[in-house]
Amino acid sequence: MDTENLGQHISKQFNQDLENIREEVLAMGGLVEEQLKKALEAFSQHDVDLANEVIDNDDRVNNFEISIDEDCIKILAKRQPAASDLRLVSTVLKAITDLERVGDEAEKIARMAIEIAETKDKSPLNGELPYSALQNLGNVVKTMLHQALDAFARMDADAAIEVAKKDKKADDEYDAISRQLMTYMMEEPRSISKVLDFLWSARALERIGDHAHNICEYIVYLVQGQDVRHLTWDEIHRLVKSRN
Amino acid sequence: MDTENLGQHISKQFNQDLENIREEVLAMGGLVEEQLKKALEAFSQHDVDLANEVIDNDDRVNNFEISIDEDCIKILAKRQPAASDLRLVSTVLKAITDLERVGDEAEKIARMAIEIAETKDKSPLNGELPYSALQNLGNVVKTMLHQALDAFARMDADAAIEVAKKDKKADDEYDAISRQLMTYMMEEPRSISKVLDFLWSARALERIGDHAHNICEYIVYLVQGQDVRHLTWDEIHRLVKSRN
Repeated sequence: MDTENLGQHISKQFNQDLENIREEVLAMGGLVEEQLKKALEAFSQHDVDLANEVIDNDDRVNNFEISIDEDCIKILAKRQPAASDLRLVSTVLKAITDLERVGDEAEKIARMAIEIAETKDKSPLNGELPYSALQNLGNVVKTMLHQALDAFARMDADAAIEVAKKDKKADDEYDAISRQLMTYMMEEPRSISKVLDFLWSARALERIGDHAHNICEYIVYLVQGQDVRHLTWDEIHRLVKSRN
Repeated sequence: MDTENLGQHISKQFNQDLENIREEVLAMGGLVEEQLKKALEAFSQHDVDLANEVIDNDDRVNNFEISIDEDCIKILAKRQPAASDLRLVSTVLKAITDLERVGDEAEKIARMAIEIAETKDKSPLNGELPYSALQNLGNVVKTMLHQALDAFARMDADAAIEVAKKDKKADDEYDAISRQLMTYMMEEPRSISKVLDFLWSARALERIGDHAHNICEYIVYLVQGQDVRHLTWDEIHRLVKSRN
């Protein structure tokens, strides 16, 4: 699927405006991906400096959101887009809220990384916490986020549906980590506070999967012109197939 | 502050369209408030039937979101609103996402209520869990949500700022509950699973406070015409005062 049918307007400048916000969204997405990557690395390496870098950079994510938001409003006011252009703008307005929240979750993980790094040598459990399972979950949601942005760049509803289906895998991995941490807590009640920091980080990753999932729903809406939120993925798939 | 300056258009039908989406948002807000109230009651009374009613009703919340979303897009397409009207529509688009998520959190609390009710007689800790602290937190965020909707109805930026400041209180109460539950878990490791259900419910309430806070930021933007997300409340307050 190409993006041609999103570009049928009279004004070249209008095309340029729309292209600009699409590019801004992808740039914001790239920054958020970077934040997530660094937060995961800081977490697994107990790297407090890197974690602080993530926390400091969250402002850049927030500024992106505000600036894209303003650009969308300007386009709505100046260009009065209709049909698929209007859907593009309203999709962007929603998608950047999710991207900004992914940024917030990355920041939370960075904060937990610092908490855990600072108690590193004091807890008997440190070596046994499921760091590799957390990295696996991190990789699943990192891939989901990347592919969601990719589907947005190519306006590809089929790809978006495939990405969104992976959310089940993220949920399952989160559940497994959560059960494992519960066992740890029962065996080592004195480590509960630290294990909960670990659990919150896993939870933050699981929520990033949810946000990637939301972005994919917006893409399907954008391409298909039908709101698919709150449908099951099987229902959405049938809908997309019936139109292709 | 009144809403007069939001209503200066040529067309009466346009005024009516804008009034309709405002009313729809308030109706959706009323339903979400009801869901939260029932979820809290189901939680404290171990009322499985009421909890199931909340879960079943979440579809109504979702349908509200889709329908208001479509109405906003129709207005943007048909009426090409400018200035404060455009801000109203974009505010509504964002606010309903937060309201829908409050609905999701209420549903989560209802699910936890069922989990806890079903293990009610099996756990030694049941009598000691901080139910009244959770109800207090519930009351704080219920009031925040109600007053945020009220500020929206009256387009009152000052009231919105006052509401948003209460989020700190919600966060503090959540932290206190969280610390208390951690102590419980350390003393009764076998109850960890149940105590975590309780903790997730407290967390859901804390997030509802965040969503009410978001809605208040949109109201300030709507009324003041300036994006105040990511400013501190002191900065926002100075801004509002400088314009009054």
